[in-house]
Amino acid sequence: MLFFTQCFGAVLDLIHLQFQHYKAKRVFSAAGQLVCVVNPTHSLKYAPTRCAAVQVSTEQGVLPPCHHHEVVHDPQLVPCTCPLFSCPWEGHLELVVSHLRQTHRINILQGAEIVFLATDMHLPAPTDWIIMHSCLGHQFLLVLRKQEKYEGHPQFFATMMLIGTPSQADNFTYRLELNRNQRRLKWEATPRSILECVDSVISDGDCLVLNTSLAQLFSDNGSLAIGIAITTSKVHSSEAEM
Amino acid sequence: MLFFTQCFGAVLDLIHLQFQHYKAKRVFSAAGQLVCVVNPTHSLKYAPTRCAAVQVSTEQGVLPPCHHHEVVHDPQLVPCTCPLFSCPWEGHLELVVSHLRQTHRINILQGAEIVFLATDMHLPAPTDWIIMHSCLGHQFLLVLRKQEKYEGHPQFFATMMLIGTPSQADNFTYRLELNRNQRRLKWEATPRSILECVDSVISDGDCLVLNTSLAQLFSDNGSLAIGIAITTSKVHSSEAEM
Repeated sequence: MLFFTQCFGAVLDLIHLQFQHYKAKRVFSAAGQLVCVVNPTHSLKYAPTRCAAVQVSTEQGVLPPCHHHEVVHDPQLVPCTCPLFSCPWEGHLELVVSHLRQTHRINILQGAEIVFLATDMHLPAPTDWIIMHSCLGHQFLLVLRKQEKYEGHPQFFATMMLIGTPSQADNFTYRLELNRNQRRLKWEATPRSILECVDSVISDGDCLVLNTSLAQLFSDNGSLAIGIAITTSKVHSSEAEM
Repeated sequence: MLFFTQCFGAVLDLIHLQFQHYKAKRVFSAAGQLVCVVNPTHSLKYAPTRCAAVQVSTEQGVLPPCHHHEVVHDPQLVPCTCPLFSCPWEGHLELVVSHLRQTHRINILQGAEIVFLATDMHLPAPTDWIIMHSCLGHQFLLVLRKQEKYEGHPQFFATMMLIGTPSQADNFTYRLELNRNQRRLKWEATPRSILECVDSVISDGDCLVLNTSLAQLFSDNGSLAIGIAITTSKVHSSEAEM
């Protein structure tokens, strides 16, 4: 009897997921856009001061890593950049994607435009929704984080990082778009390099920031659909004139 | 001597203003776009609970006014909707614009697309930057407010209200756009009616919200340029499918 109840529950979950997937597809009208359902992960290593010691120097091709190991064997090695777990791994930049995929089970998606459907937005902070996104010959890490910057007032922060160096990141522009209830919010920026540490990007607030009330207006049945597009960077026409 | 010093100061101010105006024009590239320099006003009547008693009913053509007079002589009359000052005026909706203009010295600008250049963003909260905007045969009130929702953490809230009824407001879409430092943020929504009370729109967070750090990234020399466009409302193509 318990077996049948569990089966029935699983089927219901599947129908619910399919329904969310279908709705997200309709919100973002472009035909053929891939919708990716992303489940939340309660961040196990979140500590606001983790990156305090990092001095970002954009003049260098490779920045100091986010959290330092006591002994750095090779300056060409970077530590694990997973925002979720503390991990002793270090390796060459080209190996970060396979490490994140195999060890931390972070999914990777193909396509220039995808829809990131974050479920269970009501879960308490700190919570992260993470995927990797492969397009234009590079891999990007999309992080949506629910965090309490001001106690008792959780906010949502979304950013995209290139799994590459800062000079490579300068060649791209990413766009995050929310569209629901006759409201539309778009954020466009140059991605940061994964070596710059996602925590400092979020604590600087240099990303898409949503208050809980706005996140509720844009979410549907507890899920938030974020349209993502990556293009090769052109200097904004208006800024080129400056 | 004092006279010459003052004259020199005034000329410097004028040059600075012209320079800001010129820069804002270049940020927003569309030729012929009107740039309006808006100075801040320290809000004299701000009180967060002022609108608590208002029950918004969108079924009615005209909503209950934002703050009630003890005796309402005529249900067709609306109170003064100026977000800055407490004012005993009440009158017909069609007279609100001339009242705001003549009594409260709020400027009015013509044009479908304008640039709102808010100066002195560093001033402490609560501070408002306000203009009226006339286009498509109607008048709109643009409010940028600096306010501390969380003590010690001021935020900026920007919204556009139609000086008309909620059913008239449904016919329009407004867009606010920030564009600087290789970042772009766009907010698009249906304007609310001025009868719904700007304070409640801001306290609900149903508007463009900027943290101080993001406002600094978008501002130039203490001024924030917001590109504004109003169009007649089309149901978003993606939502029409829902």
